[in-house]
Amino acid sequence: MHEIRFRRRVEFVDTDMSGIMHFSRYLVFMENAEHAFLAALGARVQWREGEREMTFPRVAVACEYLAATRFGDELEVHLRVLRKGTKSLTYGFEITRDGTAVARGRTTCACCELDGPEGLRSVPLPEWLAERIEEART
Amino acid sequence: MHEIRFRRRVEFVDTDMSGIMHFSRYLVFMENAEHAFLAALGARVQWREGEREMTFPRVAVACEYLAATRFGDELEVHLRVLRKGTKSLTYGFEITRDGTAVARGRTTCACCELDGPEGLRSVPLPEWLAERIEEART
Amino acid sequence: MHEIRFRRRVEFVDTDMSGIMHFSRYLVFMENAEHAFLAALGARVQWREGEREMTFPRVAVACEYLAATRFGDELEVHLRVLRKGTKSLTYGFEITRDGTAVARGRTTCACCELDGPEGLRSVPLPEWLAERIEEART
Amino acid sequence: MHEIRFRRRVEFVDTDMSGIMHFSRYLVFMENAEHAFLAALGARVQWREGEREMTFPRVAVACEYLAATRFGDELEVHLRVLRKGTKSLTYGFEITRDGTAVARGRTTCACCELDGPEGLRSVPLPEWLAERIEEART
Repeated sequence: MHEIRFRRRVEFVDTDMSGIMHFSRYLVFMENAEHAFLAALGARVQWREGEREMTFPRVAVACEYLAATRFGDELEVHLRVLRKGTKSLTYGFEITRDGTAVARGRTTCACCELDGPEGLRSVPLPEWLAERIEEART
Repeated sequence: MHEIRFRRRVEFVDTDMSGIMHFSRYLVFMENAEHAFLAALGARVQWREGEREMTFPRVAVACEYLAATRFGDELEVHLRVLRKGTKSLTYGFEITRDGTAVARGRTTCACCELDGPEGLRSVPLPEWLAERIEEART
Repeated sequence: MHEIRFRRRVEFVDTDMSGIMHFSRYLVFMENAEHAFLAALGARVQWREGEREMTFPRVAVACEYLAATRFGDELEVHLRVLRKGTKSLTYGFEITRDGTAVARGRTTCACCELDGPEGLRSVPLPEWLAERIEEART
Repeated sequence: MHEIRFRRRVEFVDTDMSGIMHFSRYLVFMENAEHAFLAALGARVQWREGEREMTFPRVAVACEYLAATRFGDELEVHLRVLRKGTKSLTYGFEITRDGTAVARGRTTCACCELDGPEGLRSVPLPEWLAERIEEART
């Protein structure tokens, strides 16, 4: 599997005073789809790999907004893996409502070890995870 | 004035379980700087222009993350107007901590009329606002 | 119907640096259950009643936290109407995970007319809504 | 010191489609005041005490809403310590705008050790912190 579809409704708290969903929340929808994708591969966005605490912070995000969305709208996020690097993953996203695109985005996440208070250290994707994504693409 | 510097601390609620600021909150810092910029020009991100309710929804955002930031960090957002279109504004952002860049971003906002439940309609920037930005650039 | 059960997962963005769900997000879960309840009665938390824009702001909330919840936990919110006043509704909530209570709360919401920029004005519950809640209780 | 005053503006992202600040954000203002209070005592809401990672999760919160607040409003949170228990602290809050109360709240926080994935364990307040709060009250 190298793609997934994820559905979520726009909640009241996601809106702002202009009456529509706050732009930053689209990125949260995309993040939730990414977590659903990792879960489907048997991973989590943050997990223990032996002694190590692993996580996938973003190194870049981008989003284009095509239509306003409102409280109660059910949105579908379509995630695809665009690129599997040695130490990073790039995802493309299309968010639709009733089949019409309302936003398109892209995120690149680095595979990192959480180093306690000292911070994050970029490391290669665990082999098992790289393999599962590879299988998924064929 | 075509640039502004805006300071805000990372709040506890801005962090997530990886111990650092959630990536979507950087975009909120950038948005806050934009509001400070508009306020300095005598505008607001949402205001009445005669009978009309105006607002500036985003049509595109992008952000690169250069370093993790944590609860209590004081960040400075440096906003510059990159482009003034007839109906839109493009801003560039650099977020620094103690002078070191932690993120860079860009947003494009459309000048819109809020049309009640029917939605948003893109319109030209009010002349007075376009002029103030123009003066600011010289 | 005077009660409803609503399920939602804890999202990554709901967590904070202590590794658990931020306390303010429990109240959002409760709010979402309230919206599901109103939807089931044919209402919305904000809607037009003829010329008027109606909404249900909170006048009081309270929450007790019994156990930490984490990213990925599926929570169930059980909402019950505790009191139907002329102009307000009081709800009680129990949030459970796998049948064990993790939080208990209560909110009182006033039925209000949105008065444009001047603010909110408390008004009686529309009759049709009051009746549907009444029927629901028997 | 057993009280503190903390100021913060209502941000655009704090609002919702009813045009006012979302009710859950008042609790975040109160939390920020609490962090400012702990910082003034030389503590943080989460910190290392030798080998241990300490944190102050909430066990109960309550808030009454007296007036709507809007984007750009500058609010002042007045925090007072209402009770210092062996293992917990209870704070009272009044939030004002231009001297008029807009909300009143109360939170009780437990002093806890973060026990890795196993969770939170309630422990006595560190002596140095208990003493500083005691001195502050006289």
